Parts: sequence; C-alpha cells; structure tokens
Amino acid sequence: MREIESHRCFGGTQLVVEHHSHTLGCDMRVAVFLPEGYAHAPVLYFLSGLTCSEQNAIQKSGAQRWCAEHGIVLVCPDTSPRGEGVADSPDYDLGQGAGFYLTATQAPWSAHFRMDAYVTTELVERIAAYTDSSARGITGHSMGGMGAIRLALANPGLYRSVSAFSPILQPLDVPWGHKAFAAYLGEDRDAWAAHDPASLVAGASERLPILVDQGDADSFLATQLHSERFLAACRAADHPVEYRLQPGYDHSYYFVSTFIGDHVAHHARYLR
Amino acid sequence: MREIESHRCFGGTQLVVEHHSHTLGCDMRVAVFLPEGYAHAPVLYFLSGLTCSEQNAIQKSGAQRWCAEHGIVLVCPDTSPRGEGVADSPDYDLGQGAGFYLTATQAPWSAHFRMDAYVTTELVERIAAYTDSSARGITGHSMGGMGAIRLALANPGLYRSVSAFSPILQPLDVPWGHKAFAAYLGEDRDAWAAHDPASLVAGASERLPILVDQGDADSFLATQLHSERFLAACRAADHPVEYRLQPGYDHSYYFVSTFIGDHVAHHARYLR
Repeated sequence: MREIESHRCFGGTQLVVEHHSHTLGCDMRVAVFLPEGYAHAPVLYFLSGLTCSEQNAIQKSGAQRWCAEHGIVLVCPDTSPRGEGVADSPDYDLGQGAGFYLTATQAPWSAHFRMDAYVTTELVERIAAYTDSSARGITGHSMGGMGAIRLALANPGLYRSVSAFSPILQPLDVPWGHKAFAAYLGEDRDAWAAHDPASLVAGASERLPILVDQGDADSFLATQLHSERFLAACRAADHPVEYRLQPGYDHSYYFVSTFIGDHVAHHARYLR
Repeated sequence: MREIESHRCFGGTQLVVEHHSHTLGCDMRVAVFLPEGYAHAPVLYFLSGLTCSEQNAIQKSGAQRWCAEHGIVLVCPDTSPRGEGVADSPDYDLGQGAGFYLTATQAPWSAHFRMDAYVTTELVERIAAYTDSSARGITGHSMGGMGAIRLALANPGLYRSVSAFSPILQPLDVPWGHKAFAAYLGEDRDAWAAHDPASLVAGASERLPILVDQGDADSFLATQLHSERFLAACRAADHPVEYRLQPGYDHSYYFVSTFIGDHVAHHARYLR
C-alpha cells in the first residue's frame, strides 16, 4: 500500500493509499481515515456515487470529525476499476467511475469490474493492516448508498450496521439501474434481482437496521431514487428501516455533510 | 445577484451568486451561506488562498455547520477578478486566482485588481441584501489569511473580529509577497509595507484580538509563512494575538476543517 497523501485531520490521519488490486486487476486508490488510537477501532466503509473517486467523501462529507469523535476508521474506496487497460464508456453512468459495486458478467466489463468482491473481501483484508477489529459498518451516497445496502444484505455477518444517503433503492425500476444491469449483467432479469435492495430485503437472513436519508428537493428523487417498493418490502419482511425524507435537501454533499454526523452515530451504536 | 447554486445545508442555504462588480469591472461569483433566520445575523467573511475560488471553503472547510450553530452568515468571495478581459499570468501565484486582496497600481493589473475595495466596500453593500447586521468578522486561509489580517488592521471599525489559517504573515519577507508586490505595486517599498500585517500592527488604532492557526508540518511554513517579525510586532504594540502552532498539521483544508469550529466560535464571541 503506497502512501499517496497523508494529512493530519481532527487529531487523526487522512491517508490516500494506492495498491495493485488482485481482484480488479488494476491499481486502485483508497482513502483511509485513522482516528487517534486506531489499532482496535471498528471500520466504516463509505461507498461513493456516480463520477466520484476516493476523494469526494474525504474532501466534502466532513465525516472525519465524527469518526474521530467515535473512534472509527473510515474507508472510502474508488467507485470502479481504473486505468488505460480498463473498459470505459463516454457516459458518466457507465464504466470507470460507475462500477455499481457488482461483478460484471458481460464483455468488456467482466475483465475488471468486480467492485463487490473488492469491497467485501480484498479491502477488508487490506484494512486489517490498520486495525484488528472485525466490527464493520457500511454507508454510501447515491449509487454507493445502493451498494452499501446491497452488500450488507447480500453478505450476512460481514457488517454490523448499514445506512445510505440518497440511495438508488430500486435499481430494477429506474434508468440508471436498467442501463448498468443490461451492460454489466446482460438481459437475465434474475441476475438483476440479485442486485436489487428491495428484492434482497425480502430474503434477508439477518435484521440489520437500515438508516436512509433522502432529500425531498433531490432532482433525481422522482426518476432514479424512488423508494416505495423498497419500503413496502421492508414492511412485508418486518425489516427495520428508518427512512427520513429531509425537506429542502438535494443530492449534493451539502446534504451528506448535514446528516453524516447522524449516520456515524448510528453506526457507532452498533460498532463500539 | 444571479443565483448560480442553491443547496439546503445544515438547516440553512448555501448560495453561489454571480454579479457584475463595478469595483473590479468584471463578473464575479461569491458564495453566501445563510443560516436559518438570517435577517439580522452577523457576517463572517472567509478569504481563500492562491489558486482558489469561491468554491473551496464552502466545499471543504465544513464552516457551515458552525455558522448554522452560531447563526452567522458566511461570505466566501473569489480570490481575484476573472474572465477573458482580465490580465493573467501562467504562474499559479500571480494573476487570476492570486489577487492578494490589494489594489494594483501597475499595468496590466491595475485595470481590474482591486480586491481589497471589492471585499471591504462592494461586498459589504451587496451582503446588506441578506442581513441588516453591521457586525462583521473576517478570516481566511494562506494568502486569504494575510488578506483577513491586513483588511482588518487597515480598516478600523469595519470588522469586530479577525482570525487566520496558515497566513502569509510577513509578505515583505517571503517569495510569494515579493513576487506579488513587485508585479502589482511596483518597486516602491513603502507601498509594500502598507500591505504587510507586521508593519500594520505597529500602527493599529484598535486592538482587535487576532487568532492564528499554523500547522507545524505545513511545507510552506519555513519559506512563505514564517511569523517571528509579526509576533514581535504584536508584542511590541501590545496587540492581542493568540498564535497556535498545531503539531502535525499541513496547509490543506484537512487542517482548516479541523479548527474552523474554534475560529467560528472566536468570531461569534465578538459578533453576537
């Protein structure tokens, strides 16, 4: 893990490290915030959204303040494999920067796009270099909010807590999901359903409480982020979810930064 | 004032507005954070550093959280005049993005570079559209930290509080100051001294307490930001200054965000 950046921040250290990922077959950067006395600290993963990298959350969310307060390591991976040898598209919502936290089965994406395995296995192993804690939470924004909920539901026992900002809660029902699933997974709708939080919650073997914040002035809310089927699935499965529709807030990190303190506190309740 | 951005943020609103500046002779953007119930709220100006625009502080400092808590309007201007008709240089430390908060007397800069008058007069008038308070504080980072201290010392009665992160405290003594002053002000060293915080503090007619944070791991500290002559001038003039050398911190917004809460609280003591 080569250190690219190191900044003292809220009494801890904000690192950006680079490593070769054997899962993805390319070099990856990941941002790691280490609070003071981190050797046994639990870990919160933050998955970012479309067009983002490992930089957005560490520069804009303000999460370090709260992670320092609660003694939590914050890990912010990039959103997709990267580099010249990695497939890409001119569209912002497909290819590099848009990995959708899944394992692609279709060419050309299947050569590198395995962000779910990268986050749930390789990164977990790599973060063991910093802390020996196995207490993990996961959160994220937009595409990454979807990723957080899906990875938590699909990997029982791996995370103790989950939350999301502005998540794509029903990718089966919206243009972002249709486009990504068709490209990465092909036309097999059963494969799509395995990546759909609303579908997964129906069969969840554990009842991890989910905290979700959406902004009611989010310009993507009506077209990409609607939540009725997900919330109905939670009710039907008696799966605990706290869904908060925040009046006036949009899709930006101004929204994330406003409520990130609540989310870190939510995770701290389960992680400490 | 044309609205370019509007985001709900910490119960208030983060605006970016654009207007034609009669002082600078070009269009300018300025970021304004309005906390809830801002009609009579005091105002804190944040002057950014070299290469920055009105965006850096609002995206990265986390100041809105504290301004919301203390009920303070936050105003973040751009760092220089901008646009095709405005003089520029290929160097990051001269021209657009590097206005040094002064009135240039030398061609080609004298046509537009009047950032001191823009901040102390035109912006003050424009911000009266949001709040009727005349309670003002000023802070800033790096070049903007220098600007904050200089504008406070040079305009007695205009600001009630002043602070700075990583300021260029002795521009007379460092390469950034030499280059900017020679280009903008010419070779008249008396004109340079009028822009030097250490020189100004000796003749200050009011005793505005100054809070300064520097990071001792700031790579610019030894070459551009040293403070001995400034602190000696404060001692000689019995001018109140709290100078904090923060161990391990660098020049980045990770440093600013860590201590911005202290700074907003410092200003709130004098502004509320």
